[in-house]
Amino acid sequence: MSLSDFFEPEGIAVVGASATPGKLGNDAMSNVEAADTEVYPVNPSSSGTVYGYEFVDSVAEADADVALLCVPRHLQPEVLEECGEAGIGAAVIFAGGFAEMGGEGRELQDAVADVAAEYDITVLGPNTAGYALPHRNLYGSFVPRIRDVGAGNVGIVAQSAGVAITASFHLTREGYGISAMFGLGNRVNTEFSDVIPELDADPKTDSIVLHVEGTDDAEELFEACREADTPVAAFKVGENEVSEFVRAHTAAPAQKNELYEEAFDRAGVVSVDSTTALVDAGRALADSPTPDGPNVGLVTAQAGPGIIVADHLDGVGANFPELTAETRERLDEVLPGITYEENPVDTGRPMPEFGRVVDIVARDDNVDIVSVYEIYEDSLGYPVEELATLAEEVDKPVLFTVAGPAHAFEDERRQMEAAGIPTFDTPERGAQAVAALIESIPDEE
Amino acid sequence: MSLSDFFEPEGIAVVGASATPGKLGNDAMSNVEAADTEVYPVNPSSSGTVYGYEFVDSVAEADADVALLCVPRHLQPEVLEECGEAGIGAAVIFAGGFAEMGGEGRELQDAVADVAAEYDITVLGPNTAGYALPHRNLYGSFVPRIRDVGAGNVGIVAQSAGVAITASFHLTREGYGISAMFGLGNRVNTEFSDVIPELDADPKTDSIVLHVEGTDDAEELFEACREADTPVAAFKVGENEVSEFVRAHTAAPAQKNELYEEAFDRAGVVSVDSTTALVDAGRALADSPTPDGPNVGLVTAQAGPGIIVADHLDGVGANFPELTAETRERLDEVLPGITYEENPVDTGRPMPEFGRVVDIVARDDNVDIVSVYEIYEDSLGYPVEELATLAEEVDKPVLFTVAGPAHAFEDERRQMEAAGIPTFDTPERGAQAVAALIESIPDEE
Repeated sequence: MSLSDFFEPEGIAVVGASATPGKLGNDAMSNVEAADTEVYPVNPSSSGTVYGYEFVDSVAEADADVALLCVPRHLQPEVLEECGEAGIGAAVIFAGGFAEMGGEGRELQDAVADVAAEYDITVLGPNTAGYALPHRNLYGSFVPRIRDVGAGNVGIVAQSAGVAITASFHLTREGYGISAMFGLGNRVNTEFSDVIPELDADPKTDSIVLHVEGTDDAEELFEACREADTPVAAFKVGENEVSEFVRAHTAAPAQKNELYEEAFDRAGVVSVDSTTALVDAGRALADSPTPDGPNVGLVTAQAGPGIIVADHLDGVGANFPELTAETRERLDEVLPGITYEENPVDTGRPMPEFGRVVDIVARDDNVDIVSVYEIYEDSLGYPVEELATLAEEVDKPVLFTVAGPAHAFEDERRQMEAAGIPTFDTPERGAQAVAALIESIPDEE
Repeated sequence: MSLSDFFEPEGIAVVGASATPGKLGNDAMSNVEAADTEVYPVNPSSSGTVYGYEFVDSVAEADADVALLCVPRHLQPEVLEECGEAGIGAAVIFAGGFAEMGGEGRELQDAVADVAAEYDITVLGPNTAGYALPHRNLYGSFVPRIRDVGAGNVGIVAQSAGVAITASFHLTREGYGISAMFGLGNRVNTEFSDVIPELDADPKTDSIVLHVEGTDDAEELFEACREADTPVAAFKVGENEVSEFVRAHTAAPAQKNELYEEAFDRAGVVSVDSTTALVDAGRALADSPTPDGPNVGLVTAQAGPGIIVADHLDGVGANFPELTAETRERLDEVLPGITYEENPVDTGRPMPEFGRVVDIVARDDNVDIVSVYEIYEDSLGYPVEELATLAEEVDKPVLFTVAGPAHAFEDERRQMEAAGIPTFDTPERGAQAVAALIESIPDEE
C-alpha cells in the first residue's frame, strides 16, 4: 500500500460522475477536469460528456490509478471491489455514515477495510472532502472552488477535511498557499503516519501542519513526526469536554491533550492551539531557518504594539538578551538618543534609519531571532532593500509584523516575503510565529 | 476641564505647521485639512498657504478651540501657555521625551501640567499620536493616511496610540471602522476615566475597547467602566515581565494584571488578551444584544471546525444545553437523519436547509446565544434571508463564522452583517466573540 498513486496518477476515475450541477459527482468532476492526466467519468446511467470527458459505464473501462468515489455509502464496498478488479491503487471515499455512526456504519467501514486489504487499495476516508496538490493542479475533492487554493510550501494533514479546507482557504486569502492538503476523515487505512513521510519527501513541502482530533495510531504518528526532517506543527483539538462530539465526527477515540503535547514535544513537534496559530507556525517553520536559541532581538517603531509582542514572547520561553557593546555603539551612531536602545529596541516612530537598526540588531551575536514591528507610513515605506540584503547575509529568522492601511499590505509586504522575510499582520500573530520557531529548537541531548 | 472641545472644535490650530512633506506639522495638516471647521496653520517662519489654509504667525491669530502641537518637546510649556492666552481649551502634544524618560523629561511634563492647570486646558498626551473621530471627519493626528480609517461603532481608548492605530487600521482593513480613537500616551491630565464617559454619551459609540498598560488612576478607570451603559472590553498588557519596557513607554506604573482582571470583572468589563480579541469583542458587544445566559446553540456545516469552536467555548464557561423536544422534532422534519442533532447541531455539509436549521436552533428557549460555522459554497451561498428575518424577530446574539474563498467574503458576508448578524473569519475568532458576549452578562446580584 502506498500513497504515491495520489501524487502521480495515470488517470483518475470519478465514480458516480454527474452532469447535474450541485451533485457531488459533478463538483468532483469540476475539480479534476483540469488535471494533467486523463479523467474518466464513470456512470452507467449517463452518456455523452461532462466537462469534456466522455462517460464510461464502469471503472473497468477507465485506465486509472485513482478513483474518487461519489456514490452513496451502501454502495462503497461493491464499488471499491470493482476498483480493485480494475487495478486501481488509490481511492477517496467522500461519503459519511461509517464508523462515526457506530453500529451498522461500523460494519460498513469494516467491509470497506476488507476490500481495501484484499486488493491493496490505499483509501483516503471515508468521511472526507479529499485531498489537494496545487503544484500538480490535482484537486481530488468535491469542495466547490477548491481550485482557488494556491500553491505554496505548507503541507496540511487534517483529521477533519473541514479544518484542512478552512486552513487552505485561509492561507490562500492571505496571499499564500499550500503544497498539499489531505483530509483523513475516518482513516480506514490511511493514517497520519502514512501521509507525513510522503510530505517529508515532497520537495514542495517545507513544513507540515497537523490537525488532530484523536487516533488509535498515536505512537506511529509520533514516530513519523520524529523521523521527519521537515519541521512539523500540530493542533490537537479537545482541550475541554467535547469528546462525544469528536467521536461522532471522525470516530476518534477520547484521549487527553496533555499526552499528545508531551509526545509532540519529545518528537520535536510545535504544539499550537488555534487554526490561525497552525497556519502561522506552518509559514514560519517553512520560510525561516531553525534558530540557534531562544534569544530574541525585538525592534519596534511603535512601543505599544512592541510591548504586546514582548509580553506574549516572555510567556513562551523567549529570552531578550542584552545587546553587545558593539551593537549599542552602532545603534548610537545611527540614532543618537534613540527612544529605547535596550532590547527591545524602540525607535519611537518609523524613520529612514529603521531598516539599518533592524540590520544592526540582527547581526548581534547574542541574538538568535529578530522580531520587528512597524506600522506602515507611505513616505518611508518598509525597509525592503536592507531586509533583502540581511536575509541573504545572515542565517537567522527575521520576522516582520506589519500594520497600517490596506494598500500597504499589497506591495512592499510581498516584496519582503519574496526576499525571505516572513510577515504577519497582528502583534499576537507575529509573536506566535516567533514562539513556534523557539519551540522548534531541538532539545539538548 | 472637558473633552468636548475635541469633539466639536470651532477651529483647529496646528502649531508648528509646515509646508514640507514628511514633517510632523505637515502630516498633521494633511489630516485636519478636510475637517468641517476652520484650520489655522501656525508658524511664524512660514508664509503663504498649506493645504489651502493661510499661515498665521501665532495662536493668538487663530480662532480655535483645539491646538495640535507639532513643536519640539522643550517648547511645549511655552507654546501651551500661548494657547491658554488665546483661549484654546484643548491641545494634543505629540512629542515624546517627557515622564517616560524620567529626570528632566519628568520636570518638563510637570511644567506642561502646571500650564494646563493654570489655563484649564485639556491636554491629550504628551507622547501620543492623537485622536480620530471618523464620523465627524476629524483626525487630530500626525499618522499618515489615518483618514483611511473608516467610520464605525467601536470606540477605542488606548494607553498606546500605536495600539489604537494598529486596531483602527485592523478594523478598517476588515471592512469595519471606529466611532472614536484616543491615544492617551503620558496622560498629563486626560485619563481613561475622562474619555470613557464621553464615549459612553456618544451616540455613534456602541462599544468601548480599552488598551491598558498601567495607570495611577486605576480606581477612577474601574469606576468609569462601572458607570458606563455602553459595554466595555479591555486588554491589559503585562501578563509577563515587561514592566521596564512599559515604564519607558508611557510612564506606566508596574501593576499586576490579576488586579485589573478582577476589578474589570467586577465592573462588568470583558477582559481579552490580544489586539485581535479586543477588536472582535468590540464588534460583538457593539452589534449584538447582551445574552440572557451562557447557553450556546452551536450549528455547524462542517464538524471539524465546529469542534474547535466548541472546544474553545467549553473553556470559557459556555454551556451547551439540550435542545427542547420541540426543537428536535422540528430539526428532524427539516433534516431526517441529520448528522448530529444534539447540540452542537452538525449538518455534515452545507445544504439548502442550513438557514432553516439555524433558525430552529435560535428559537429554542434553552438557547441564549447562537454560534454558526459554515464554509461557503457558491451554489448554495449563505442563508442571508433566513438570518435577516431571524435577527429581526429574535432578540438573541447570532454570530456567524465564515470560511472559504476570498470572493465569498465580499458580498453575502456583508449582507449578513447589514442584517444584524456579526461575522468572524476563523473558528477561534468566532469563539472569542461568543466568549466576550458570555463574559458581558451581568453577575447575579
